[in-house]
Amino acid sequence: MAKLRAVLFGATGLAGQQFVSALSAHPWFELVAVAASPRNAGRRYGEALAEGGWFLTEAIPAAVASLVLADPLSVDPSGFDLAFSAVEADVARELEPRAARAIPVFSTASAFRYEKDVPLLLPPVNGGHLGLVRAQAARGFAGYVAPIPNCTTTGLAVSLAPLVERFGVQAVLVTSLQAVSGAGRSPGVPALDVLDNVLPFIAKEEGKVEVETRKILGTWAPGRTEVQPHAMRVSATCTRVAVLEGHTETVSVSLGRPASLDEVAAAFGEWKGDATARDLPSTPPRWIEVLQAPDRPQPRLDRETHGGMATSVGRLREDAVLANGVKFVLVSHNTKLGAAKGAVLVAELAKAQGLL
Amino acid sequence: MAKLRAVLFGATGLAGQQFVSALSAHPWFELVAVAASPRNAGRRYGEALAEGGWFLTEAIPAAVASLVLADPLSVDPSGFDLAFSAVEADVARELEPRAARAIPVFSTASAFRYEKDVPLLLPPVNGGHLGLVRAQAARGFAGYVAPIPNCTTTGLAVSLAPLVERFGVQAVLVTSLQAVSGAGRSPGVPALDVLDNVLPFIAKEEGKVEVETRKILGTWAPGRTEVQPHAMRVSATCTRVAVLEGHTETVSVSLGRPASLDEVAAAFGEWKGDATARDLPSTPPRWIEVLQAPDRPQPRLDRETHGGMATSVGRLREDAVLANGVKFVLVSHNTKLGAAKGAVLVAELAKAQGLL
Amino acid sequence: MAKLRAVLFGATGLAGQQFVSALSAHPWFELVAVAASPRNAGRRYGEALAEGGWFLTEAIPAAVASLVLADPLSVDPSGFDLAFSAVEADVARELEPRAARAIPVFSTASAFRYEKDVPLLLPPVNGGHLGLVRAQAARGFAGYVAPIPNCTTTGLAVSLAPLVERFGVQAVLVTSLQAVSGAGRSPGVPALDVLDNVLPFIAKEEGKVEVETRKILGTWAPGRTEVQPHAMRVSATCTRVAVLEGHTETVSVSLGRPASLDEVAAAFGEWKGDATARDLPSTPPRWIEVLQAPDRPQPRLDRETHGGMATSVGRLREDAVLANGVKFVLVSHNTKLGAAKGAVLVAELAKAQGLL
Amino acid sequence: MAKLRAVLFGATGLAGQQFVSALSAHPWFELVAVAASPRNAGRRYGEALAEGGWFLTEAIPAAVASLVLADPLSVDPSGFDLAFSAVEADVARELEPRAARAIPVFSTASAFRYEKDVPLLLPPVNGGHLGLVRAQAARGFAGYVAPIPNCTTTGLAVSLAPLVERFGVQAVLVTSLQAVSGAGRSPGVPALDVLDNVLPFIAKEEGKVEVETRKILGTWAPGRTEVQPHAMRVSATCTRVAVLEGHTETVSVSLGRPASLDEVAAAFGEWKGDATARDLPSTPPRWIEVLQAPDRPQPRLDRETHGGMATSVGRLREDAVLANGVKFVLVSHNTKLGAAKGAVLVAELAKAQGLL
Repeated sequence: MAKLRAVLFGATGLAGQQFVSALSAHPWFELVAVAASPRNAGRRYGEALAEGGWFLTEAIPAAVASLVLADPLSVDPSGFDLAFSAVEADVARELEPRAARAIPVFSTASAFRYEKDVPLLLPPVNGGHLGLVRAQAARGFAGYVAPIPNCTTTGLAVSLAPLVERFGVQAVLVTSLQAVSGAGRSPGVPALDVLDNVLPFIAKEEGKVEVETRKILGTWAPGRTEVQPHAMRVSATCTRVAVLEGHTETVSVSLGRPASLDEVAAAFGEWKGDATARDLPSTPPRWIEVLQAPDRPQPRLDRETHGGMATSVGRLREDAVLANGVKFVLVSHNTKLGAAKGAVLVAELAKAQGLL
Repeated sequence: MAKLRAVLFGATGLAGQQFVSALSAHPWFELVAVAASPRNAGRRYGEALAEGGWFLTEAIPAAVASLVLADPLSVDPSGFDLAFSAVEADVARELEPRAARAIPVFSTASAFRYEKDVPLLLPPVNGGHLGLVRAQAARGFAGYVAPIPNCTTTGLAVSLAPLVERFGVQAVLVTSLQAVSGAGRSPGVPALDVLDNVLPFIAKEEGKVEVETRKILGTWAPGRTEVQPHAMRVSATCTRVAVLEGHTETVSVSLGRPASLDEVAAAFGEWKGDATARDLPSTPPRWIEVLQAPDRPQPRLDRETHGGMATSVGRLREDAVLANGVKFVLVSHNTKLGAAKGAVLVAELAKAQGLL
Repeated sequence: MAKLRAVLFGATGLAGQQFVSALSAHPWFELVAVAASPRNAGRRYGEALAEGGWFLTEAIPAAVASLVLADPLSVDPSGFDLAFSAVEADVARELEPRAARAIPVFSTASAFRYEKDVPLLLPPVNGGHLGLVRAQAARGFAGYVAPIPNCTTTGLAVSLAPLVERFGVQAVLVTSLQAVSGAGRSPGVPALDVLDNVLPFIAKEEGKVEVETRKILGTWAPGRTEVQPHAMRVSATCTRVAVLEGHTETVSVSLGRPASLDEVAAAFGEWKGDATARDLPSTPPRWIEVLQAPDRPQPRLDRETHGGMATSVGRLREDAVLANGVKFVLVSHNTKLGAAKGAVLVAELAKAQGLL
Repeated sequence: MAKLRAVLFGATGLAGQQFVSALSAHPWFELVAVAASPRNAGRRYGEALAEGGWFLTEAIPAAVASLVLADPLSVDPSGFDLAFSAVEADVARELEPRAARAIPVFSTASAFRYEKDVPLLLPPVNGGHLGLVRAQAARGFAGYVAPIPNCTTTGLAVSLAPLVERFGVQAVLVTSLQAVSGAGRSPGVPALDVLDNVLPFIAKEEGKVEVETRKILGTWAPGRTEVQPHAMRVSATCTRVAVLEGHTETVSVSLGRPASLDEVAAAFGEWKGDATARDLPSTPPRWIEVLQAPDRPQPRLDRETHGGMATSVGRLREDAVLANGVKFVLVSHNTKLGAAKGAVLVAELAKAQGLL
């Protein structure tokens, strides 16, 4: 089977580089074109990043290094099977619909996450929401825009999914200790801001977590034109700490019914995720790893579990404040499942479901 | 007035050095003797710390540098007016009662914090509890042991006090992002554990926060033999981050009655603290500073406010999960108000109240 | 005596804020006007920096907070006695000559450092070079431009000065471990670049150190139109590390004649600096502090010595490779003596020498 | 071919864990016994490290997790083919000769590095020195002790070897910026010491680098009873920075004859290493990688090159101070080639050379 041909928008930024890495040697998709800001158009990808511009530890794949960067507005999407988008939200608002007129667009940008006809896809949690993209035909799209959630929402939603399924969830309070890579690198988080420090504020992040969690865990069925958000109340506090990769989150949950800690641990440990996402190329052996050591999860030790596609959960305890309260700590890889690899997973889901 | 003569136990460790600093040029107390582990006994304080052993940026005060370190078991407490104690809990259990037979002991150790006849003193919050130390006469003490709270409890209890007074508090959830200095330095937190990392666990810390907060905010009246803990429910998650000094805490509070954010901000901003603690030498201009900038408080920028004696509060928002919920972020200096300077403040309170 | 009235260019950046701090309560100078990029023009200084824009731990001085930011091109320099400049080199090339037509300009920018009629002033080392500014009259300046050296050169030149005076210096090799604050904050050094990392390259920095060291330590006498650089050979390697403030430098020096380590230590310890700089308001008690502890100097512990105006030197040893070789480690405050406070010191020198 | 059976001393520390990782799935050696301090004796390896004691990101290999920890003094070495030793120098002085009476011991400890009949083995540089171990028969050893160099010496000696071969080397000055992992973890480097800081001193390290570099690059021929050290002069300054893994070193070299930078780059790039070490299981594709980007090597990006077995070299420039001077920056993995994997490489060399 020939691989599907992909174009990548926003290829030179940190998020774009992570797409290049995530697509290297992918069994279904081949990156055949790269686009970035016009000032780099016409240069080979490898040359544009030669002087200190490539930030990953692995080398640039040779096949990508030789691709010539295109101006994104000059790209004809009909020459490709699908697009990945790693651009900022404001750029996404222009570029993504333009591409979606012809082909599916899998995106890390927030621009379309909150539109009614756009599912917010985290395949192990809500792979069944994918069909909502068909509603975008009303926009005149032959393709569609399929965004992934904010990287802080991702691990939270994964950890809540088995609790919602087994016990119900009334409410959740979360404090995030987020890595700096989530902010990219140009400029990203200045070292002056996080060395010997905590930033207790990330613009718009808390609202994203609160809205997205309810949408991801909401319900949708074929024929409906929007997702019915989950009714749980969500309260988020988002902070930035001196960690390179891997978001840590302290979570307190009010369950729908009493449950022992053993029952909760079993819910995490036995969770298989949505049936649509169990056999995709990027599916990890387990979506949730429950750690027993009292001092885990830690971002540096646990972020790469199953290639950064698993959410590590530990420190499971009762919460004395909430009704049927339990609390735990999770670590999730913000630039793997939470970004490029998460978007590739959605594209895999689309392919497996016949929507690509 | 001649200054009261103080002896310091545990003088060479990081906490001990902070006592040396806190007592330098103190208007009421003079550090006239220093004790430390027997292997250093007989050496001058300055010599014992000459080779990489003194960790503060200011120099060792000359008067202290020339003091000869004593074996703590050889110290006759009756030669002094008061003692400060910066030893570990297990050592405190032996040394502190021995000294308290003769003189008051102001301590950062946790050894006696949970005993019935021992108040847990944070003067702006519960200076009125001091009289409970009289109950220790039953132990045969001419003096008493007066411990301060755990450094993570300190900022939390200060921030809760005005809310308890004005609205009542039903429950509180807190996540701490704690500095490494709280763990001392021998060995303290290994760099390998916190560089590019978060430690999601600090042994026994969460239990201390939960118990101590209720005791500090509890009630006591002359004649009673123990503190009646406050009824609020407390849920704590304690983490360690790569910050040198200053604990950051994200706090969600369920108030006793509805209150607008403006009313809560006013409660913080107008709070004067307990009447007993308003004019002590170490009393800051305000116990709580309310910050308006959206990205404050930050530990590096705010920990030193009013000499590390103030708690900085910011990011006041409604909490959607809790009944009458509000949430905020605080920064408190863990080795100033939360340690040596906090213990000196208690000694000042004792002097002002005629108990020294 | 009325204070001299100063205008500050580049007032809102990190370097500009350090000037605001350095001039707060200065005995000779008063900051009466602030200028910054046109987009902030018309706003009060305090308002422009209210939302996360002020990075120092002390508060903005009230008198400065209420100043209205001017567009620098609209500033009439003849309304002031002197200017301080904290702008980038390219902006300096336009703004500084414009101001110098009317008044002296004391600058941290590199734009004019290498011009023949411009001294590179580090008062304790070459205060006597100040008179060279008179040569700028040929440019039609009623004032002059007086830049200070690069912050990495500063500590090196201070430490070399007593060696040049007493033994002569043939050559110097230096490796710098530089703090991130030297790069400013917009964007400054990204956290992704220095967490768990060393950057082994800082653009143009090594050339600056090599050229500036020789110019600062060179000779000039009244009547001459340029500085004769010192003949020493200089080899610099500049790196960036995860330190907020304070440059550490490892230095190996080939002296002009054999000298014992005791003699070298005495040369450092007895050095008084240039006679012109001994009694200025910002002159520290000693320009060089020689530390005996084997593990000093350290940037966090030693950068603030004498208000950041002293260079701390330690680890004095023989160097087995160089002729008459000695080696040592120094720490110098890159944003105090190495930036705003260093420029204020030059202005003090100018005032004391009748050139202001 | 059955694998050789290895016992590991010091198995529970950080260095020991790195041996466990390095030997996992090794084609020639099998770890069949683990020894550690007596207090852990009798516990299974996996249990002893279950609660926060295992520091690597990969899981403990199952075969090792089930091994029962032995008291090292109770181990009968004659039951094994070889030993690896990750103990501290003082313990090594007792344990290693005891084992060497029966079997070869490959060690990261410094205890025997400076003995005349002990080669200091870095196979790509001096694999030919291995035969010197035969001289240890005079100690009554049926085996021998074969230590590897200090981790800071390793990268330096690798980078100097091609220069010695092609141009000769007169002298070298090096400043190291060392990672914290080199100090182990119990207690290792306290976070308080390196956050926002540089430690300019590591006890005994500079002397080790100076002596070991000359011994490794020295000459030995069969029949001789000791290594003739290389005559180059070496001057080292060793510092510690906030990096987890990977030592960065800035190096200035005085070559034996003039050479262009292109010639030096070619010497690095073409270097194959000693013939004895070209086909061992752990031999990387290249021992030296020359990087062209101006801001490389960086420890975080380059330490893992070729599994941590390569030395990355960049920033090649002329050095204006030294005769025939060149300078460069290198990064070398201190706990891979510089520790456990380096010792395994020596064991591979011994096996290939018939000395095992």
